[in-house]
Amino acid sequence: MGKRAGSNIILIGFSTTGKSKVGKKVAECLSWGFVDTDSEIEKISAKTIPEIFAQHGEQYFRDLEREVLKKACSGGRRVIATGGGAILDPQNRELMFSSGMITCLEAQAETIYRRLLDDTATSGPLRPLLVADDPLQHINYLKEFRQPYYDIADWTVHTDNLSLDEVAQEVLRGWQYWSRAYRQEDDVCMVIAQTSCYPIFVGWGSLRDLGKRMHQADLSGKAFIISDETVFSLYGTQLKDCLRDAGFTTSSIVVPPGEATKSLDSAAKIYHRLVEGRAERKDVIVALGGGGVGDLAGFVAATFLRGLPLVQLPTSLVAMVDAAIGGKTAVNHPQAKNIIGTFYQPRLVLADVQTLATLPHRELVSGWAEVAKHSLILDAGFFQFLEDNVDRLTKLDPELLLEAIKRSAAIKAKVVSEDEKETGKRTLLNYGHTIAHGLEAATNYERFLHGEAVAIGMMGAAMLSERMGILEPSVVERQKVLLSRFGLPSSSSGIELARLLEAMGLDKKMQGGKIRWVLLQDIGQPVIRNDVPAEQVIDMLKCLIV
Amino acid sequence: MGKRAGSNIILIGFSTTGKSKVGKKVAECLSWGFVDTDSEIEKISAKTIPEIFAQHGEQYFRDLEREVLKKACSGGRRVIATGGGAILDPQNRELMFSSGMITCLEAQAETIYRRLLDDTATSGPLRPLLVADDPLQHINYLKEFRQPYYDIADWTVHTDNLSLDEVAQEVLRGWQYWSRAYRQEDDVCMVIAQTSCYPIFVGWGSLRDLGKRMHQADLSGKAFIISDETVFSLYGTQLKDCLRDAGFTTSSIVVPPGEATKSLDSAAKIYHRLVEGRAERKDVIVALGGGGVGDLAGFVAATFLRGLPLVQLPTSLVAMVDAAIGGKTAVNHPQAKNIIGTFYQPRLVLADVQTLATLPHRELVSGWAEVAKHSLILDAGFFQFLEDNVDRLTKLDPELLLEAIKRSAAIKAKVVSEDEKETGKRTLLNYGHTIAHGLEAATNYERFLHGEAVAIGMMGAAMLSERMGILEPSVVERQKVLLSRFGLPSSSSGIELARLLEAMGLDKKMQGGKIRWVLLQDIGQPVIRNDVPAEQVIDMLKCLIV
Repeated sequence: MGKRAGSNIILIGFSTTGKSKVGKKVAECLSWGFVDTDSEIEKISAKTIPEIFAQHGEQYFRDLEREVLKKACSGGRRVIATGGGAILDPQNRELMFSSGMITCLEAQAETIYRRLLDDTATSGPLRPLLVADDPLQHINYLKEFRQPYYDIADWTVHTDNLSLDEVAQEVLRGWQYWSRAYRQEDDVCMVIAQTSCYPIFVGWGSLRDLGKRMHQADLSGKAFIISDETVFSLYGTQLKDCLRDAGFTTSSIVVPPGEATKSLDSAAKIYHRLVEGRAERKDVIVALGGGGVGDLAGFVAATFLRGLPLVQLPTSLVAMVDAAIGGKTAVNHPQAKNIIGTFYQPRLVLADVQTLATLPHRELVSGWAEVAKHSLILDAGFFQFLEDNVDRLTKLDPELLLEAIKRSAAIKAKVVSEDEKETGKRTLLNYGHTIAHGLEAATNYERFLHGEAVAIGMMGAAMLSERMGILEPSVVERQKVLLSRFGLPSSSSGIELARLLEAMGLDKKMQGGKIRWVLLQDIGQPVIRNDVPAEQVIDMLKCLIV
Repeated sequence: MGKRAGSNIILIGFSTTGKSKVGKKVAECLSWGFVDTDSEIEKISAKTIPEIFAQHGEQYFRDLEREVLKKACSGGRRVIATGGGAILDPQNRELMFSSGMITCLEAQAETIYRRLLDDTATSGPLRPLLVADDPLQHINYLKEFRQPYYDIADWTVHTDNLSLDEVAQEVLRGWQYWSRAYRQEDDVCMVIAQTSCYPIFVGWGSLRDLGKRMHQADLSGKAFIISDETVFSLYGTQLKDCLRDAGFTTSSIVVPPGEATKSLDSAAKIYHRLVEGRAERKDVIVALGGGGVGDLAGFVAATFLRGLPLVQLPTSLVAMVDAAIGGKTAVNHPQAKNIIGTFYQPRLVLADVQTLATLPHRELVSGWAEVAKHSLILDAGFFQFLEDNVDRLTKLDPELLLEAIKRSAAIKAKVVSEDEKETGKRTLLNYGHTIAHGLEAATNYERFLHGEAVAIGMMGAAMLSERMGILEPSVVERQKVLLSRFGLPSSSSGIELARLLEAMGLDKKMQGGKIRWVLLQDIGQPVIRNDVPAEQVIDMLKCLIV
């Protein structure tokens, strides 16, 4: 059989296993198209399927079915529910196999029989399968006959004891594994994690679509906007209008800008406003702002009434490609940044890239550090793209900016999908961060923007990789050049080494007291090492903070 | 085929799909036994399987296999990995079907071929399947031949793109659906929720097993004990000794007893202690105490470093059967109890029933309200058991006490397994709680213990059910008699109606501003109604708080 290239989900399986209803549900969740081949055949022939069989015979139906399936499979990002017999045709099998993931909905014969009887009881006409002398035996026979053809399936869901929603969830779970193995980069703007599945929209002027997107995500009720004074003064009115047009009641909770606001005290004040506003479990927290606002609003959403739905509207570059994606929420402890927090996934992320026009220059520059990081750890092609386009990117060329942010967000989404709670691959995202957190703490979070510290930290990690003999000096240089073309620093001065080391000792990414370093072997080829000698680290830091 | 009665998990499927390794992992997670029929056959015959085939022929092997399988299936709570061909025998199929859930581990022929080659490359001898002229074709042929027999499976996991741990997790997920449909009550002392799966141990003097249980749950490192002064003075030393004997370093964080401690301020103080103690992500929070300590410690565990492993050691009756199970964590807001919190599941719950000996009488009585609630909403047989044994239960007869707590905890575990985040069935656990929360708030949480308020609340809900014409007066009376035999109140006085109504208006279980009442149609038959007229509620409350 051919390559696994397509991006569709094709549902096969016996009658009554819910292919149409489940398919619709799955398509909704993914914001994909949905095709039901049986309905399509009825539509184009203007006849019911029993009529087609009666008037033209089975062969005629199978020919039509093949055509309809071919057309459905010709596109991508579709959920396609097929008729129970479509899988018997070798051409159809080949077509399905090469156009996406094949999922089989199963049910035991007894279950199918019971469901057919129930259907007949509620919706009238006797189903053809029930016409046989011994319907159960007939179902058993048909199932056994078809069973070998089902071995083409990439995933199977036994529907006997599951609700429709549960079946849809299991289909999505299978798709998560499958897409991890086969899917194309350009498709991924979706987090599909263990506990939830949500879309990331990156667009130009896309804030106006927010109402529609929230409805698609099944959100309604009151919307509590959490934002800071700076961002709210720029986009608050527009956001409130969007939400009201979409039928939401809005309340705005506006906090002072800056890292100091990301505290347990601020969270307590917001709780108070939510209690006053009689927030209920289905009401929505809408976070409008940069990473700090997103972290704080996310923490409140995660911890109020044991979880309110959360929408992230990032307005800074770093939030769009990093902070708003992946469900890390946090407030600071007086002694350690981000140490209080949860994993709590948003229901949707919508990045309106146009809002970057009002972002202070220094913050924009800082954001490129995380974009560069994504390319350095996971996508050499993207690194090349950044090298080729850095000048136009820093001038905010809309088309290139959109592409860069989409690609960067997609990398983050993919990593988070594979490792929601940072027990494995997600650690790679900490490239440069061990040092960065130390630098920020050692300077009381006053001197560096996060991205600036990350840029210096990545230079440290690259230098450490070189010292460990795993990275070519030329690659260290390429990284340095790209960062500096974005306007990012690659070293610092005036920091006491002892202070930095102490600050790094409190870093929360340690395990068993030993630092796990994310190092590079090449661009796009990270490696985790916990055997880096302390002297090497100290040596490197001395060069880094001269 | 026969009834689905057994409690085993039987793994079927082709060679290289990981039946043995996955089976072992699943058994570990469930703390069940594990049998690998091929290994068992080799053990009892003191020969390798190729030797058996060569010296005695296939029939001899199949006979042995049937015997071994029969023995394995004769018990319960076992994970049984079968040989690839066992499923072809009709007797074996019948046996498997009636002894538990059958899960098929699948892989596509190409995957199987690749894995066999890898195995041979790493572990030496050529696998028999590779001896054929065209091994891939041979595998395809065998798979097609066996495929119809796999239709017996209750669940299928396609292992192609999954890690061993992921396959084990998918097996457990299937088991969760299956056990919901078929499993016996007496087995359930396990929460198997969407995001996690953990055991609940109820025993007499079982605190001494804690170290072993924690190792089984793969916990190690530093243990931060969170407890209150009262409980810690009674069991702190014993607990620290247990943990140290099991290789844990311990730190104790002891808070004042009482509801006032369940605050964001207390959480902040504990965060501070954890920062000082350099707590890392794999270190464990051990909550020793009643519901309040469990809620607070759970909240801290959920929110420090985005989640530390949590062990619940409930020492009050209400915590054992209710609060410690299900992952609700909380602290209070000055204006609303429990309004700040998360869903965060513990890694294990261990209830040492012996600790109830030191529980103040009034708190013990209060705990019976939740036990009675479980029987009232979900288990008429258990209600009967309580009626029959109330006198010996209140005298703490060890055997009966163990049975009552096990049954009550199992009911809670089952409900939580089905609905981790209270979007559906878990709402039923709020029977009596709408009024109870109002009563507690209206009296500043000073007058009632939670269970006392719940008892009054349940009487209110029963009276409301009667007024709505869905519950017989005789059942209301039976409930009242049982509660009063436990020493619980069924009404109250001296509370202002207006105050109570206001307090209930803030109740967080509302949806869309309307109260969703959990009412009864009979013992064990709850129903949710949101159409209860306000006058009926007011009328009922007037009778309740005369």
